[in-house]
Amino acid sequence: MADVKITKREDDYSRWYGDVIAAAELADYAPVKGCMIIRPNGYAIWEKMQQALDGMFKATGHENAYFPLLIPESFLQKEAEHVEGFAPEVAIVTHAGGVKLEEPLVVRPTSETIIWHAYRNWIQSYRDLPLLINQWANVVRWEMRTRLFLRTSEFLWQEGHTAHATYNEAERETLTILDIYKTFAEDHMAVPVIAGLKSESEKFAGAHHTYTIEAMMQDGKALQAGTSHHLSQNFAKAFDVKFQDETGALAYVYATSWGVSTRMVGALVMAHGDDKGIVIPPKLATTQVAIVPIFRKEEQKALVMEYISRMTRDLDGIDFKVDDREQYSPGRKFNHWEKRGVPLRMEVGPKDLEKNQVVLARRDTGEKSFVSENGLRGTIDGMLESIQNDMFERALDFRKTRSHRVDVYAEFNEILDGDAGFLWSHWCGSAGCEEKVKNDTKATIRCIPRDEEKEAGKCIACGEASEARVVFGRAY
Amino acid sequence: MADVKITKREDDYSRWYGDVIAAAELADYAPVKGCMIIRPNGYAIWEKMQQALDGMFKATGHENAYFPLLIPESFLQKEAEHVEGFAPEVAIVTHAGGVKLEEPLVVRPTSETIIWHAYRNWIQSYRDLPLLINQWANVVRWEMRTRLFLRTSEFLWQEGHTAHATYNEAERETLTILDIYKTFAEDHMAVPVIAGLKSESEKFAGAHHTYTIEAMMQDGKALQAGTSHHLSQNFAKAFDVKFQDETGALAYVYATSWGVSTRMVGALVMAHGDDKGIVIPPKLATTQVAIVPIFRKEEQKALVMEYISRMTRDLDGIDFKVDDREQYSPGRKFNHWEKRGVPLRMEVGPKDLEKNQVVLARRDTGEKSFVSENGLRGTIDGMLESIQNDMFERALDFRKTRSHRVDVYAEFNEILDGDAGFLWSHWCGSAGCEEKVKNDTKATIRCIPRDEEKEAGKCIACGEASEARVVFGRAY
Repeated sequence: MADVKITKREDDYSRWYGDVIAAAELADYAPVKGCMIIRPNGYAIWEKMQQALDGMFKATGHENAYFPLLIPESFLQKEAEHVEGFAPEVAIVTHAGGVKLEEPLVVRPTSETIIWHAYRNWIQSYRDLPLLINQWANVVRWEMRTRLFLRTSEFLWQEGHTAHATYNEAERETLTILDIYKTFAEDHMAVPVIAGLKSESEKFAGAHHTYTIEAMMQDGKALQAGTSHHLSQNFAKAFDVKFQDETGALAYVYATSWGVSTRMVGALVMAHGDDKGIVIPPKLATTQVAIVPIFRKEEQKALVMEYISRMTRDLDGIDFKVDDREQYSPGRKFNHWEKRGVPLRMEVGPKDLEKNQVVLARRDTGEKSFVSENGLRGTIDGMLESIQNDMFERALDFRKTRSHRVDVYAEFNEILDGDAGFLWSHWCGSAGCEEKVKNDTKATIRCIPRDEEKEAGKCIACGEASEARVVFGRAY
Repeated sequence: MADVKITKREDDYSRWYGDVIAAAELADYAPVKGCMIIRPNGYAIWEKMQQALDGMFKATGHENAYFPLLIPESFLQKEAEHVEGFAPEVAIVTHAGGVKLEEPLVVRPTSETIIWHAYRNWIQSYRDLPLLINQWANVVRWEMRTRLFLRTSEFLWQEGHTAHATYNEAERETLTILDIYKTFAEDHMAVPVIAGLKSESEKFAGAHHTYTIEAMMQDGKALQAGTSHHLSQNFAKAFDVKFQDETGALAYVYATSWGVSTRMVGALVMAHGDDKGIVIPPKLATTQVAIVPIFRKEEQKALVMEYISRMTRDLDGIDFKVDDREQYSPGRKFNHWEKRGVPLRMEVGPKDLEKNQVVLARRDTGEKSFVSENGLRGTIDGMLESIQNDMFERALDFRKTRSHRVDVYAEFNEILDGDAGFLWSHWCGSAGCEEKVKNDTKATIRCIPRDEEKEAGKCIACGEASEARVVFGRAY
């Protein structure tokens, strides 16, 4: 139980992020540049995320499979934009089993190529469609500047790869997944996101178009938290995957791919953490309630522990942990569970026992309350629900205060250097204006929001006509 | 729904194995030599296995974590036996991010080295022990002769890596895991196994000693299904991991490691499959009951489907699937679910509707019975339980008929060439005799069984004194 001093967010947000990850023992840097070790506390959050997402994928008809880690280098080159995007960051196996390989193998940076190679054998007729497959896997992308969870050379993710008979069906799939990602981020992570379309320059290498969910971190910067790509027939053409439709005609298959990664854990930390440590929303907490017994004398101990064991009998379905470690003081234990972001702490001492009560302390607000034994279960259920909702509402309020409608280009840098945040501005749709804004301000178009109403206006950069506002921001 | 003709087991067991995997759509070979694609039907079995094992690991205090895929080559060389065992079969990354790496990276063949490198930072005091960590991951071992699931260049597995203060505690851990593996194999996979110690020559590279569970396949050959290693202080010494005990003295940490892999899926197929396809025990079946509606005329369809939907309301907790596909005949559907090994088939036609009954057909025995609607739930529960138990008992009986107490060395090859099976014979304990038997007969010592009573005898190879019988067999 080594102590990590946590830098305050307002002093140095970036150091704060590293400190809370160390304090909560979520992850370490690995001896290999840019790779990370996900420690049990970090992995437990990822497992909870996996469970929730996997359930949503299966409920919408998707099945899991597993495709090989190693991909022949030539596969990557079959789709022109794809290779251009990924070739610079791949890791390459040149030797195996003691000999030099005839063809080098790429450690998968993403699996479109190897999967569409397989789909060629699996898809012949419209009866084989749609094919709705997901895989949970590790991928490697050699990154120059890395940061735990947010950008690492190896990361864990899920990647969905589906095949469809028509463009419209693939589009529906792309949006179904976008919706799952938004629901997951908001209802489970308690992180509000803006769902929308990526601009041409920001779309996935090989996609027809890319949807994204964008979240705001506590320093006002944007984080791309998940993407869903409509690949049209690009990969089907690259790997020659055709199907026979009901009339007997041959046509290329339409595709989607989509993924979220361990980056989500970083988003969770950055969106909700405070100067005491991380804060985990109840739906993703492996320990939802940490119970700390308090006593001075040995004879009090047995009574307190007995009281606790009686009370916890009623907590079926709630993930609680009784911290009965002998070597640490209650204060130290409070700190231990605070750093780790456990949503509720229950304190139980001899006085509580006399009054048939316990003390409940909320991690998100610090608020303490006395709760009588007979109403305990209901109170805990209610509090966990409130914490989940309040965390979302606070994050939403924060985003509102850092969202700006900007119509004067000269204000861009001023706002970004101050609040950062999301800048809702008009854009004419040209890559040139997008590029200019990026060069001038380091802000990129995070997305063209889906739910935004049309509004005539003038491009922030060139003054030409624009149909709607898009979201600019500096991003991780 | 392409048709795969399944070779009979007695004609060619090896081809039969490939055929049933293809027929059940469990896996494909990948374009990279020796790698495989695990298809949804195969992955679903692996997911069920993961759930069961993960639950048992967590119930015994283990937590999951994730360590990097890529390991500096120099790490492998820190433990002399370990590098000797694994160096010949590693895949090596020499280039990444467009440049040649200063130090080549090995794609993990197993993770002892990278994990013990991390443990050096995590372990200082006896208070940090025991450390009970597991990871679910992919590993790569470049294999010359491969076979789907049983031996592939990349496979999925779990690898546990624990750290302890004493030799005895590490030994208890090693045996706790051995017991979990045995329980899992027998109670979930319905595959009886012999648990025991590996001989020195067959132990894990870097272990003090290795325990194994050995199963018998339907061709009488042995399959090592899981191993649990006591590593003593070997890796702690290689990576300089010491802890301060309660008296303040420094000592090296004791270690265990243990793993089971997607090989288990191959074991399941080989142990239970028949000439119609694979047979999945109910506890590992994603679909436990396949329901096939039968009707000739369109007006019967609505009635049958309504009857099915009424009945299935009572099947909460049972994984059933109603096969309402229009384009296939009932016979074709029977075949579809048989190939895939679904434990129970329910047939429902107009006559059953009149009699308020259904037909249930067991996959393992082919037995059919008529069951009235009101006793349905209980009957299905009972049948699933019977199938699970009967599959185990049949496998156990099979093993008995193929197990031989052999005291005359001249009989070895005769038995192995006929029945194959397990040969229980005396062994003096010398590596020379073990080697001689291997060279003469291709049989290895599968294990020195734990539960076997001592029995004085003479070594099958040299005639010297022996304390107990060991199990010889030809192995996958």
